[in-house]
Amino acid sequence: MARAWHLERRPQGMPVAGDFALRDIAVAPLDDGQVRVRNLWLSVDPYMRGRMNDVKSYAAPFALGEPMTGGAVGEVIESRADGLSPGDRVVHMAGWRDEAVIAARDAQRLPPLDAPPQAFLGQLGMPGMTAYFGLLRVAEARPGDTVFVSAAAGAVGSTVVQIARAHGMTVIGSAGGAGKCDWVRSLGADHVIDYKSGDSIVRQLAAAAPQGIDVYFDNVGGDHLDAAFATAREGARFAICGMIDIYNTGAPTQLRYIARTIAARIRIQGFLVSDWLSHAPDFYRDMGELLAKGALRREETVVEGLEAMPDAFLGLFSGANRGKMLVKV
Amino acid sequence: MARAWHLERRPQGMPVAGDFALRDIAVAPLDDGQVRVRNLWLSVDPYMRGRMNDVKSYAAPFALGEPMTGGAVGEVIESRADGLSPGDRVVHMAGWRDEAVIAARDAQRLPPLDAPPQAFLGQLGMPGMTAYFGLLRVAEARPGDTVFVSAAAGAVGSTVVQIARAHGMTVIGSAGGAGKCDWVRSLGADHVIDYKSGDSIVRQLAAAAPQGIDVYFDNVGGDHLDAAFATAREGARFAICGMIDIYNTGAPTQLRYIARTIAARIRIQGFLVSDWLSHAPDFYRDMGELLAKGALRREETVVEGLEAMPDAFLGLFSGANRGKMLVKV
Repeated sequence: MARAWHLERRPQGMPVAGDFALRDIAVAPLDDGQVRVRNLWLSVDPYMRGRMNDVKSYAAPFALGEPMTGGAVGEVIESRADGLSPGDRVVHMAGWRDEAVIAARDAQRLPPLDAPPQAFLGQLGMPGMTAYFGLLRVAEARPGDTVFVSAAAGAVGSTVVQIARAHGMTVIGSAGGAGKCDWVRSLGADHVIDYKSGDSIVRQLAAAAPQGIDVYFDNVGGDHLDAAFATAREGARFAICGMIDIYNTGAPTQLRYIARTIAARIRIQGFLVSDWLSHAPDFYRDMGELLAKGALRREETVVEGLEAMPDAFLGLFSGANRGKMLVKV
Repeated sequence: MARAWHLERRPQGMPVAGDFALRDIAVAPLDDGQVRVRNLWLSVDPYMRGRMNDVKSYAAPFALGEPMTGGAVGEVIESRADGLSPGDRVVHMAGWRDEAVIAARDAQRLPPLDAPPQAFLGQLGMPGMTAYFGLLRVAEARPGDTVFVSAAAGAVGSTVVQIARAHGMTVIGSAGGAGKCDWVRSLGADHVIDYKSGDSIVRQLAAAAPQGIDVYFDNVGGDHLDAAFATAREGARFAICGMIDIYNTGAPTQLRYIARTIAARIRIQGFLVSDWLSHAPDFYRDMGELLAKGALRREETVVEGLEAMPDAFLGLFSGANRGKMLVKV
């Protein structure tokens, strides 16, 4: 028997348990070209919040009363497709459930890198690609640049810190609380800002980067984005990856320093990792090298059991995770 | 005897008459390489507000108790410089005064285009270059694009409308009040939004551009910028030229739709026309062609007399001008 988390209600603001229901799903026989996958790891990501709204965006909204989807790593247990056999490990998008029937073309074998399978949902998967392409291609960060990254203890942010260090950049990361800040520092960040310290982010960032910042990697929006405007050097580039601050509240973003866009000739570029998938070989090559050199560290916050998936998801918004948030089925 | 407007006090919020004083200035003998110029026209521009604050920005702050500066067109009345003789008309930056002593290298002869001298402070000067380079180079607007421009009845905005039309773009302009809106329409705008109509700018823009906008040329910030975020199509480009909405208030900008930057992969680029001066020959060539074809229209709001300069300046913030605001000395 298979089970999946269904979206029962569209959340108003911060989601609550009653917005989701864990239900049995039919165990269908396979069509040609399909495989049955037993999921081992489920990805838990902030962008999923957007799909719970009934708003057209880059990813279609989750349908009400239907199983939700998301990244997952699983093992093929039955196959009617050439090229995939029982025992093969694959990454795919039929998460939020323990077992899935998918087209073989929608499943990707785990890349041949020396890492555990769940890493391909984090630093060696979408969040890692988001960090890599956002920093190096979208923001065009270069050696010598001063880079500010928010949510630096998250799956994306912690990878930004390490890629930036490996490329000879000065890195300022923000995180909430002493434990996460220590960890971000241990990853090689030159300065760490504790956004829960009570001191303003603008003031902390200006102290950490007295000459200003060249690059801002935004996972957060809000006060962090405003601080980046306040401290941007001439020609600064912002890669806008996420604005978790406002995913639940819907409150307007208040920006005191946005007019510096003009004087500092700031370039702000929104991006989605999905636009960069055709460049994935560059990512695997470069990350493989860093991995082999021991230059990549990774943490995971693992929540056990399919039943706990909504709790894991809500934890993203209270800062419960260090590194990648995962559910181990 | 020469007179110049001095900055007496740094304005708090909206400037008031007492912030400025018209004072005699010394009529100095010329050094080698200098010319004496009698000003005929003074440029009145929103960016001057920023220079009244004691804040480091792209242009140095005006010094307290000293004459202010700005664009001007004048006639050389005395010369100790090769290449400039009495009777020559020049454009230069020693405005806010009736007579100026300047280095000949800081004065530019009026370009050989068939237009009255004051046009070189407006459509054929800095505001025109701002429109041209901002639209075509910074925002990379292309034929077929839908372009939204705020303050479309201003010196910059009205030129954006006409350059966009001449390049086969669909143009939506915003202006305040029926008279200005009619004028913007007469310049060739496909749709005009009256931001004083009481209806929200988001709603009006969505109605004017049901398929969304490709380019936003921002002179205003605030609600106009937010409406551009709300309606941006995938891959939209924003050229950020001015944010007159907040020059005086200092209030934070409230943005409800900024998170669309991510899904729509919006690129936002701040710019200053001064970065593009080396490309001025392109501008004069293309604008000369449009002028010869009769494809350029221009309005000026002329305030008479040096004494009225502060009033003219304040008029920019209440929307008193249609087209370029000028003082005729």
